Amino acid sequence: MAAIVRYGMVGGDSGAFIGTVHRRAIRFDERAHLVAGSFSASSQQKNKDTGALLGLDPKRVYSSYEEMAREEARREDGIDFVSIVTPNVTHFDIAKAFLSEGIHVMCEKPLSFTVEQAEELKALSEQKGLLFGVNYSYTGYVLAKVMREMVRDGKIGKVINVNAEYPQEWLLDDLHPVPGQELKLSVWRKDPEVAGISNCVGDIGTHIENFVHYVTGLNIKRLLAVTNHFGQPLDLNANILVEYDNGANGAYWCSQVAAGTLNGLAVRIYGDQGSLEWQQENPDFVRYTPRGEAPRLLTRGNGYLKEKAAAYSQLPTGHPEGLHVAFANLYKNFITAVLMNKRGEDTTSIDFPRVEDGINGVKFVHAVVKSAANDACWVEL
Amino acid sequence: MAAIVRYGMVGGDSGAFIGTVHRRAIRFDERAHLVAGSFSASSQQKNKDTGALLGLDPKRVYSSYEEMAREEARREDGIDFVSIVTPNVTHFDIAKAFLSEGIHVMCEKPLSFTVEQAEELKALSEQKGLLFGVNYSYTGYVLAKVMREMVRDGKIGKVINVNAEYPQEWLLDDLHPVPGQELKLSVWRKDPEVAGISNCVGDIGTHIENFVHYVTGLNIKRLLAVTNHFGQPLDLNANILVEYDNGANGAYWCSQVAAGTLNGLAVRIYGDQGSLEWQQENPDFVRYTPRGEAPRLLTRGNGYLKEKAAAYSQLPTGHPEGLHVAFANLYKNFITAVLMNKRGEDTTSIDFPRVEDGINGVKFVHAVVKSAANDACWVEL
Amino acid sequence: MAAIVRYGMVGGDSGAFIGTVHRRAIRFDERAHLVAGSFSASSQQKNKDTGALLGLDPKRVYSSYEEMAREEARREDGIDFVSIVTPNVTHFDIAKAFLSEGIHVMCEKPLSFTVEQAEELKALSEQKGLLFGVNYSYTGYVLAKVMREMVRDGKIGKVINVNAEYPQEWLLDDLHPVPGQELKLSVWRKDPEVAGISNCVGDIGTHIENFVHYVTGLNIKRLLAVTNHFGQPLDLNANILVEYDNGANGAYWCSQVAAGTLNGLAVRIYGDQGSLEWQQENPDFVRYTPRGEAPRLLTRGNGYLKEKAAAYSQLPTGHPEGLHVAFANLYKNFITAVLMNKRGEDTTSIDFPRVEDGINGVKFVHAVVKSAANDACWVEL
Amino acid sequence: MAAIVRYGMVGGDSGAFIGTVHRRAIRFDERAHLVAGSFSASSQQKNKDTGALLGLDPKRVYSSYEEMAREEARREDGIDFVSIVTPNVTHFDIAKAFLSEGIHVMCEKPLSFTVEQAEELKALSEQKGLLFGVNYSYTGYVLAKVMREMVRDGKIGKVINVNAEYPQEWLLDDLHPVPGQELKLSVWRKDPEVAGISNCVGDIGTHIENFVHYVTGLNIKRLLAVTNHFGQPLDLNANILVEYDNGANGAYWCSQVAAGTLNGLAVRIYGDQGSLEWQQENPDFVRYTPRGEAPRLLTRGNGYLKEKAAAYSQLPTGHPEGLHVAFANLYKNFITAVLMNKRGEDTTSIDFPRVEDGINGVKFVHAVVKSAANDACWVEL
Repeated sequence: MAAIVRYGMVGGDSGAFIGTVHRRAIRFDERAHLVAGSFSASSQQKNKDTGALLGLDPKRVYSSYEEMAREEARREDGIDFVSIVTPNVTHFDIAKAFLSEGIHVMCEKPLSFTVEQAEELKALSEQKGLLFGVNYSYTGYVLAKVMREMVRDGKIGKVINVNAEYPQEWLLDDLHPVPGQELKLSVWRKDPEVAGISNCVGDIGTHIENFVHYVTGLNIKRLLAVTNHFGQPLDLNANILVEYDNGANGAYWCSQVAAGTLNGLAVRIYGDQGSLEWQQENPDFVRYTPRGEAPRLLTRGNGYLKEKAAAYSQLPTGHPEGLHVAFANLYKNFITAVLMNKRGEDTTSIDFPRVEDGINGVKFVHAVVKSAANDACWVEL
Repeated sequence: MAAIVRYGMVGGDSGAFIGTVHRRAIRFDERAHLVAGSFSASSQQKNKDTGALLGLDPKRVYSSYEEMAREEARREDGIDFVSIVTPNVTHFDIAKAFLSEGIHVMCEKPLSFTVEQAEELKALSEQKGLLFGVNYSYTGYVLAKVMREMVRDGKIGKVINVNAEYPQEWLLDDLHPVPGQELKLSVWRKDPEVAGISNCVGDIGTHIENFVHYVTGLNIKRLLAVTNHFGQPLDLNANILVEYDNGANGAYWCSQVAAGTLNGLAVRIYGDQGSLEWQQENPDFVRYTPRGEAPRLLTRGNGYLKEKAAAYSQLPTGHPEGLHVAFANLYKNFITAVLMNKRGEDTTSIDFPRVEDGINGVKFVHAVVKSAANDACWVEL
Repeated sequence: MAAIVRYGMVGGDSGAFIGTVHRRAIRFDERAHLVAGSFSASSQQKNKDTGALLGLDPKRVYSSYEEMAREEARREDGIDFVSIVTPNVTHFDIAKAFLSEGIHVMCEKPLSFTVEQAEELKALSEQKGLLFGVNYSYTGYVLAKVMREMVRDGKIGKVINVNAEYPQEWLLDDLHPVPGQELKLSVWRKDPEVAGISNCVGDIGTHIENFVHYVTGLNIKRLLAVTNHFGQPLDLNANILVEYDNGANGAYWCSQVAAGTLNGLAVRIYGDQGSLEWQQENPDFVRYTPRGEAPRLLTRGNGYLKEKAAAYSQLPTGHPEGLHVAFANLYKNFITAVLMNKRGEDTTSIDFPRVEDGINGVKFVHAVVKSAANDACWVEL
Repeated sequence: MAAIVRYGMVGGDSGAFIGTVHRRAIRFDERAHLVAGSFSASSQQKNKDTGALLGLDPKRVYSSYEEMAREEARREDGIDFVSIVTPNVTHFDIAKAFLSEGIHVMCEKPLSFTVEQAEELKALSEQKGLLFGVNYSYTGYVLAKVMREMVRDGKIGKVINVNAEYPQEWLLDDLHPVPGQELKLSVWRKDPEVAGISNCVGDIGTHIENFVHYVTGLNIKRLLAVTNHFGQPLDLNANILVEYDNGANGAYWCSQVAAGTLNGLAVRIYGDQGSLEWQQENPDFVRYTPRGEAPRLLTRGNGYLKEKAAAYSQLPTGHPEGLHVAFANLYKNFITAVLMNKRGEDTTSIDFPRVEDGINGVKFVHAVVKSAANDACWVEL
């Protein structure tokens, strides 16, 4: 019999973009089947319509996440995991509810607004023996995994400098408000109560932190930061200097007001034996330069670890794998871990972003905000 | 009630790569549900296992495509369309069987080996009033659609030269056979009985022909070609000069032995008012140069027709959309057409590759082979 | 005592762009000193002013090239070589005059309008034992020399396909004449009496032919061509298929009406063991892919033959060397040959474009024009 | 009569690379003639040989710079300016000697080791009414000038973030010393007595400071920095955060140990109305994005200010202009200023790097070193 995994979703009604992206990504792995959901907290009609569109049993389309967690936990054929794709402010409560009922969780980032909440979720998942994934989707790119292996295998030696950034331009218009026209920066991104203490760093800066850590294995020991609000309540631009636990330094830049950029996560990692350069908008390629040699353009289909890359590839090389595949790879490993967990196997070696990564993200944001508020003083992590 | 579409698949057992790609692409559109299949002609075990993995009713996992066509046609909740993802040599017979039973067809390319067969499928689909899609997947890229609109809207004026190519390198090793080691060019690609009269032009050259036609609207009036077999029964490399119905010329090159290339479909279209350049391996961008101005780098999220592009985008700009999205866009329109057809609406304006495109592809291959066999003489199309 | 070379120039008054470029390029090699000139045939004032600006002895600023050839030949400290930078139609006569007086010649391309004239210059230079350089400047780029060595050393194996082009956009406006405004395509480029039988192929197409020959060592056995005049007397666009003496094929494209291009000489050479890609507008880099490996980005300072490259580099790697350096490298070797010739040494191994290259260029143009006039028939070279 | 300028050189014997580069660059402007020199302080033989090679009057090949300054000042046909291309530690004394004798100076950077010396040179040149250029060569690129005009004309609005860097890799091998083999980092670059207080920041970091200032007009108000020595006496890598006088921030990175980089000066300037991106290794192009529009690829021959760009272009667009042209443009304006000065005209509007730029460079280096020594504290400039 086919080993399959049942899952439910909270949030993501058919009008919400992000739910569809997650469902598609999960469906790349044909072992996973959607069987339950509570797709909209604000509209039961939307909730039901989404369930109908997706062909769900109407009884498993729940009016609240609490009911869903409770009822699914009781069913023999209940969901194995829940995917949480709701607004940031709700992540903590929903994740806690499902963990409490013994259901594995894959949660959108950020995990929570405070380090304490994040630690509580970690403790709860450990106590219950449950898997807790956090959706740092960019680490799902095949080349991210290849770079990580290359660093581990010493291909670039000891890391001596990191240059990473994540510029966007989509909020630039808000610096030029047109009377009577709505700002792009909606209320929930400006209000610390709803958005947390940071806008730009919290939303995209954390991806830099997570991605660099994923690839290099380095932890930030301390950092200093300058942020720019340009008249808004929260940050729109940040320059950050970091010091890693191996003594090396790095510079991070994130922005939502950088004209001519789209979704420009990019990392350049310089080691004493070589370097790696990668850009999210051209994710199938890595520029790798061994010390003293010419740069090489590695893809999924050539170069170092091509067998490893092939294991994650969802298309032959030369056929671009976009962000859906990165999401899919993340879920693929999570689904594998869920199946292993069911069989009582150890899942510690399975590669997916975990609750610890979520905690590090929250800590990073708090450190940046603290430094920026204190004239770029060093803040230990 | 949600308007949904039921479909079945022929070919594509869970071990076959291409079936999974199609199912994922179709599933990008949550209106479509897989309900039937005949996934393997050679192994009933594989067939059943695939059905089980996908959660299908075992009664709708058929041991042959003939049975599937017959039985599904009789059911009230039978499939609306079939997706055919079997080896090339079988496309004609399977497509014919489903058309005969009144079921819409989406078929992998090439449509058939002879122009006569292709014409027969066209006639049958028209007689039955059925939709017939052919999977020229690259036209599903958002920027392909944007380029087409730009040409139609006169942004580059009259086309005066086309430069298009599709190089790959994967068969290069076959020019250096290692004794005792299997060639990459498997028997079915070398044997005209199974592969048709061409290898390289039939497999990838046709994508050039179709893509250029899709974007420019131009038809090839005549062509001349030189092909290279390098000791193999079928072509591995071809240089082609074409003359379009508007009097302009173009040069096409396709190759399976071009070191350093992956899946390099690329087109450059020069008009008397501007030009467009696009590469399949970086599909989210088009370089557009209006006459006398600086080149512009258009994406889904900026520039000309961004509203149009947005309608096809499955992700925000800056988040790479790979080939899955191109497939998905093709199916999205096909599914829309199926729903319209159900409601008795006219579908002629819906944009998806049709049986006529398949016929043009077969004609193109025959013309290239004929010219090459006659010392690069002109062949009319 | 320093070994120096004295040279004179015909054409290139201080208002003429190309003379300055040549003088600068020659002056990169500090062994060469300008001592004589006949800079303008149409204006003795310009001629004298140019001599004065350049600090020449007024007696060595000649009113005609005939006088200059005669007088300089008589002087003990007369010029060792002449650089001819006059309009195309005059090249033959001027070159002949200096050869006749026993003076080495470096001549702008094209060498002449007819193959017969070109052969006459060759015969004359051989009879007199004189050096005759033709200014195919692009072969002076360091990376052109590196590529040539790589091909010779078997790094890409046997060449199996060549894809080369040279598009420009500068004449596109002439397809849209504005009443009362002058065309860019001046009379002398349109009039076969002055421009020769071809415009686009003669002006830039020949660079493709020469460059590919220089790098690969291949000779064209036959070719077929389609040209487009777009209403003008001479060609503005050409697509050419070639067959080399090793049996491989290639496709060349040149254009003066390709929007969005500048001076886009680009070659891609595919061998059965690897490939090379190079673009004139980014001349310090070559993309080299060994069969089965990742592409490498070679520059003057890394990769294959970096010692060789260093010998031609005029700047440290990473400091862009533009076209002046390509010109300079060409002259550098020519000057070395002149010095060797003075010492009675054999110069056959010295690498600079010679009269034979000029002859091949004239033959190429004639073959293209003949094929295009005969509906793209094959023409043997 | 032709208006010409006479110049002399100190340093730059024919074996020294940099002297040749300067002489070539100056000679791009045919108004300038080399008439005197003191090419080598360590070898009179080299000094004389260089003079002979260059065809100088032996009487004007001086054994010391002091003699040269003195004698040339006395001649009626004495030099108008001197070009100083000697080791850093000597710049101050030589410049002072020529200024004292009333001769204009163009000096290699850095101007001096201390701010005091730099100020002294400034005072002396002002007192004497002499021109004093400092060779920040990268500002000579045509596109640097175009970017400057664009910022001035408001094309990108108010600058809100700057991201600039200058990585090299050439000292990476020194982190892996091979016993018995000489390090690349020669003694004079390691010894503060000879090299000054900084290696990497002094050598290349100052180019970032100068280039950003040149293009944007912004001055650094304060900065903080982290440098890395990796076991050497002086810095090899630096990350710097700056705050400009308009309130915006920027991040600079320079390195001599960054594998895979060559001479990677690159700046990205983000304004509230658009952005500019430029790379020294591809200097003929600027990526310009107006707010809300698609990026445009500007060159010398298209886009904004193409007439202005054309005035500085030394070659038609599409023909790469390398670093020699940047040097040449710098000297071209300096030579123009010298001629204007001779005629008693005001030269304040002439664009070339001046002694003030040299002073700013020295201040920048001192601030970075001070901040790095104080755990990245802010240092006012």
